[in-house]
Amino acid sequence: MAEATAEQKYHLITRRLQEVLGGESIKAILDQGKAPKAYWGTAPTGRPHVGYFVALTKIADFLRAGVVVKVLLADVHAFLDNLKAPLELVAHRTQYYKHLLLAVFHTLGIPTSKLIFVEGSSYQLTKEYNLDNYKLCATVTEHDAKKAGAEVVKQVDSPLISGLLYPGLQALDEQYLDVDFQFGGVDQRKIFTFAELYLPKLGYAKRAHLMNAMVPGLAGGKMSSSDPDSKIDFLDPPDAVRKKIKKAFCEEGNITENGILAFVKAVLIPISELRIERARGETLADDEEGQGATGNQRPFVGEGAPEGTVFSVYRDEKFGGSSHYASFEEVEKAFADKELHPKDLKTAVGDALVSLLEPIRKTFDESEEWQKIEKLAYPDPNADKKKKKKEKVYHPPPPGKGKNANVPADATAPDAAAPAEVPASTPADP
Amino acid sequence: MAEATAEQKYHLITRRLQEVLGGESIKAILDQGKAPKAYWGTAPTGRPHVGYFVALTKIADFLRAGVVVKVLLADVHAFLDNLKAPLELVAHRTQYYKHLLLAVFHTLGIPTSKLIFVEGSSYQLTKEYNLDNYKLCATVTEHDAKKAGAEVVKQVDSPLISGLLYPGLQALDEQYLDVDFQFGGVDQRKIFTFAELYLPKLGYAKRAHLMNAMVPGLAGGKMSSSDPDSKIDFLDPPDAVRKKIKKAFCEEGNITENGILAFVKAVLIPISELRIERARGETLADDEEGQGATGNQRPFVGEGAPEGTVFSVYRDEKFGGSSHYASFEEVEKAFADKELHPKDLKTAVGDALVSLLEPIRKTFDESEEWQKIEKLAYPDPNADKKKKKKEKVYHPPPPGKGKNANVPADATAPDAAAPAEVPASTPADP
Repeated sequence: MAEATAEQKYHLITRRLQEVLGGESIKAILDQGKAPKAYWGTAPTGRPHVGYFVALTKIADFLRAGVVVKVLLADVHAFLDNLKAPLELVAHRTQYYKHLLLAVFHTLGIPTSKLIFVEGSSYQLTKEYNLDNYKLCATVTEHDAKKAGAEVVKQVDSPLISGLLYPGLQALDEQYLDVDFQFGGVDQRKIFTFAELYLPKLGYAKRAHLMNAMVPGLAGGKMSSSDPDSKIDFLDPPDAVRKKIKKAFCEEGNITENGILAFVKAVLIPISELRIERARGETLADDEEGQGATGNQRPFVGEGAPEGTVFSVYRDEKFGGSSHYASFEEVEKAFADKELHPKDLKTAVGDALVSLLEPIRKTFDESEEWQKIEKLAYPDPNADKKKKKKEKVYHPPPPGKGKNANVPADATAPDAAAPAEVPASTPADP
Repeated sequence: MAEATAEQKYHLITRRLQEVLGGESIKAILDQGKAPKAYWGTAPTGRPHVGYFVALTKIADFLRAGVVVKVLLADVHAFLDNLKAPLELVAHRTQYYKHLLLAVFHTLGIPTSKLIFVEGSSYQLTKEYNLDNYKLCATVTEHDAKKAGAEVVKQVDSPLISGLLYPGLQALDEQYLDVDFQFGGVDQRKIFTFAELYLPKLGYAKRAHLMNAMVPGLAGGKMSSSDPDSKIDFLDPPDAVRKKIKKAFCEEGNITENGILAFVKAVLIPISELRIERARGETLADDEEGQGATGNQRPFVGEGAPEGTVFSVYRDEKFGGSSHYASFEEVEKAFADKELHPKDLKTAVGDALVSLLEPIRKTFDESEEWQKIEKLAYPDPNADKKKKKKEKVYHPPPPGKGKNANVPADATAPDAAAPAEVPASTPADP
């Protein structure tokens, strides 16, 4: 197709977002025929779960519109989130995240030539960055920092100083990553407006901010590594995926607390539409789109569905036959009206997710390097426990210390001299 | 004299201090025949005033006992204290402080071969230091940081984040300066105990802490650059020194609120004793003591004073003749009993201070380099005002802005693009 217009690109960049701040600056860049640069950050802590599809599906839109996307792998933050995890472990996890994110984009059929991975440690410990951090600390009040972090920093009775630093550091990232906009969930809104206020005070440009709606986890709440049933790992086998979806909270007719419906809206229908658009040749900025894609690249649309269908739910003819939906709103209405039963919806979502994950698992199974990294990044906690027990036999603790031998003397102390071996409790929840 | 014993050195290091924490670790180093390493820090902001004599007189004891003294010139802190002062200005002030501190030690007759100046920027912006800072921030609660800084961080309604960082940074300085103890006023006590608690949590050694009593300014309160009458500059000419001392609050018989008496106790008598000890050959660790000293090196003891006198107050015979004191307690008692009149005490203190400052002024007058630095570090505010006024004639402010033309639009904004030229209001109070 012909080169997309600035308007088409802007539409693709901003569609389905809950909120856009400073969109006119992105428009201006597109009008000049330039490629906007964007940043999305994640801390490489626990294993990423399929909830990441929400952000990555939107990032696919950016890439399709020719945006240069910088994925910040915030290794310094990951290290600080859990001081017991040594830096070496965080480095392995950073590599794991890279492998996984690339595999996800390949299954979405999105070329990754404009995707740039940046490790936080590559610039967050430099002289310039830290001087700017100190400048911010000498400019920002505790009150403003606390307000900015209220929705994303864990609120506890005895908050750590680090919680006050995060908004400023995230603002500086926009400058040091040299981007035009930052993308994140709408829970980042206060962090984003903080950046808009304070970067200009350091003499830096104010950036645009694009926000996704918040998507509940499949179990209903926020998708979290600490609740195993809410979390579907990208490498989970099909039966585990289907089992977890089966257990998810999805009450008949209830469309407000429904992680399954939310996933259909934020992930499955966008991917379905992306594949339909590509089949029609609507690849916008990137002619290479779809080349080298892993997996079957079929939209989640059943056989014989009418034109315009973006999502289908298969049902046996004796139960009324399959249903085809032309939009999420149609799916939602059918569910609200109890025309679409939770069991059928879950089956459709399970099938779609299994087909999405299949090429990712395949990539993993075929990559010795990724497998090696996976073992280093997320070592088997049970293997470690056995090892610890064994050690206890040979090295009995000093008298009076036996009971707490498995617990570090001071659980809050950073373990500067921690062994490369990982404590059983390590895998942290991002 | 024979090489001093560890006990003699320890006595010299700790005498006249209000409090010593961890003294046994210093003793252990001395017992091994090694030289302890100490750190004292100051931020090169406003012009240092004679109140600095209090710390420097004690540091003279450290140097005499063979301690390696590292003077941290906290340029990063100075910059952060007043973001409107460009880094270049701070660099000039750092040089000014070095010249001045060296001149003071020379007038005290203390060899400076074991005195090491370290600029904070030489390590406080490194990767390692900042990672440790982040680690501390992820370990220390806001509450604990606030408590630690309660006495030294300015308490305001809208505190800045930087106030919470200072205790941790000061703790890290002990590690990065590689010292055995830190020295400061007793107002630093909570910062010091914070360091004792948190450095070991990073795997670093706990340091000893030596504290001077707090000494009121000559006007009665804390000696401060913002109250010109309380501040005697090291380079003030004799008549200015005498005039300021004359104006100081020093009520007959009142020994509790008395900056003049406090100065006699913390500065003049220690220097007098130092000079008497040296005249007797009691130079302890350093055979070179007194060599290359500037100024007359006479103790503040009058002619014909009895053996053991450490301070004399000259009085005409018709007013009862001079008084000689063998200790501060004797001076204090005489003042309390109204045997020593404020006017006579002030004259004696003025004479002593003028004689102490004379060689410093002479060094300044003979050093083109120092004079040049002085101009750059503390430019004449009036010259600047005139310049600004002139500019106003040629560049009238936009309508409605005339009244505030001399006030920065946003006084809290860091001035990243500040010109090398210094605003009239710049010289900051440390």
